[in-house]
Amino acid sequence: MRKIEHIGIAVNDLNASNALFEKLFGTPPYKTEEVGSEGVRTSFFKSGPNKIELLEATREDSPIAKYLDKKGEGIHHIAFDVEDIHAEIARLKEEGFIVLNESPKKGADNKLVAFLHPKTSNGVLVELCQEVPSE
Amino acid sequence: MRKIEHIGIAVNDLNASNALFEKLFGTPPYKTEEVGSEGVRTSFFKSGPNKIELLEATREDSPIAKYLDKKGEGIHHIAFDVEDIHAEIARLKEEGFIVLNESPKKGADNKLVAFLHPKTSNGVLVELCQEVPSE
Repeated sequence: MRKIEHIGIAVNDLNASNALFEKLFGTPPYKTEEVGSEGVRTSFFKSGPNKIELLEATREDSPIAKYLDKKGEGIHHIAFDVEDIHAEIARLKEEGFIVLNESPKKGADNKLVAFLHPKTSNGVLVELCQEVPSE
Repeated sequence: MRKIEHIGIAVNDLNASNALFEKLFGTPPYKTEEVGSEGVRTSFFKSGPNKIELLEATREDSPIAKYLDKKGEGIHHIAFDVEDIHAEIARLKEEGFIVLNESPKKGADNKLVAFLHPKTSNGVLVELCQEVPSE
């Protein structure tokens, strides 16, 4: 848990939210990326040493579509940068957290990611992420 | 908007959540503080260059008590460090954001703070905060 890597925010309309957050930060997103496996289109803003990730659903069965249906737009998750995601998954399971991905999966922004279930982390969806080592 | 200063998380029981987040981060909170005017007791964890603030309500009419009643535990707000909070309030109003505190108020951790209404910022309660200048 070296630092907050990014905060993920669920949005209904990525283009509209890109314009809104550009007003907030005074600068446009530095990239957008679609993650087909997760059914999301994302954009990234820099905020000092962290990032803000906006997430729009691209299909009805994506986790973001379900979240928006249930809770509406808002902060969806906090992602923490970890050095060794496998070791952190093992440590946090041992501590009693429910890890949703026993094996980390490929996320946006060239990361390996795994999520902790909000019910064991105070209602917070926590993402662990590790930069994919270059080959 | 220089960087994320902290992320605020609403909790039912600060002592229990301190123990939980100590397991998550591997380190205890570095301070706790009560803010009487807001009806909250808070604790702070360091996360690299940022902080995580846990917030417990100390009375029924505190904003955190109302939030917990309505939404339950979870991420409550994102606070951004700003150099000049008065200038940022003016800029963001001009951009169409609803600012809940036209005059910044005293928050936890020796800050002047002001909030943006979630309805103009994508469902996200945004806090602006500026270190109180020393006298």
